[in-house]
Amino acid sequence: MPAVAQNATPRDSGFKAITQVALVTKDIEASAKRWAAVLGVDMPKITTTRPGNEVHMVYQGKPSNARAKLAFLRAGQVTVELIEPVGAGSSWKKFLDEHGEGVHHIAFNVQNLERADAEMKALGYDEIHRGRWDSDNGDYVYFDTTKALGLMVELLHEDPKK
Amino acid sequence: MPAVAQNATPRDSGFKAITQVALVTKDIEASAKRWAAVLGVDMPKITTTRPGNEVHMVYQGKPSNARAKLAFLRAGQVTVELIEPVGAGSSWKKFLDEHGEGVHHIAFNVQNLERADAEMKALGYDEIHRGRWDSDNGDYVYFDTTKALGLMVELLHEDPKK
Repeated sequence: MPAVAQNATPRDSGFKAITQVALVTKDIEASAKRWAAVLGVDMPKITTTRPGNEVHMVYQGKPSNARAKLAFLRAGQVTVELIEPVGAGSSWKKFLDEHGEGVHHIAFNVQNLERADAEMKALGYDEIHRGRWDSDNGDYVYFDTTKALGLMVELLHEDPKK
Repeated sequence: MPAVAQNATPRDSGFKAITQVALVTKDIEASAKRWAAVLGVDMPKITTTRPGNEVHMVYQGKPSNARAKLAFLRAGQVTVELIEPVGAGSSWKKFLDEHGEGVHHIAFNVQNLERADAEMKALGYDEIHRGRWDSDNGDYVYFDTTKALGLMVELLHEDPKK
């Protein structure tokens, strides 16, 4: 149905925009091929993340060494992210085991991670999984919003440029 | 995880951008309140769509008289759409019955609906639900892409301006 947004002011602390729609898949090659066909774009590059212990991954309060295969396909301002879990100990693997393939999260870029994180916690949402980007120039944090919002919310924050 | 899109050319026929992330809910008032709090925006207006027979609704190949309550919250270029099914005979109701609350679809604005529709069908995706916008100046079409893509895809097309 068409969108007629009644409001447009993101909160100060930095929920700027939805920048990703991320799906968990059990076969990233096959998923990426189908998505590329629908979007009419080239097959994306598929990468494997560094082990969790190299990117400070914390899952359910404990360090995790999980990995994932990733692919990104651009669709306007939003990127479709495909995630194939590798190994146990991640919200990606848990989602695939419990729900099968589907939408894992949407991501927001935030300007102030600490403040946005505190706001999410003040709203009653627990942090469930976090880590550094593979490129080591930013952080990601997932919150346990599935029951309340219908999906998981991720905050993405790029380090300030030096 | 951060987005590094490897490709950025939408296909000619008009998949311009992801413009909506749409979730089905069983209580749109409660969902809208939670989403507004997370996004830091005012509570959105909740509307009820006209009966399906007034907006040429077709569901699984047959006319349907289903309705829905809708709310829209803006998050950058993307709008979060909340949908509470009213009555039977829609993909919204079927989703809620089978999966509970969650992501129903993502929407793409297309420039040429007929061509985009033909391309989706050529890729093997069946049309599952369609109708006119309540404002009667555009069409929406949902495709049965859940197994292949992990969610439903919607094409949105606004009538050419007269």
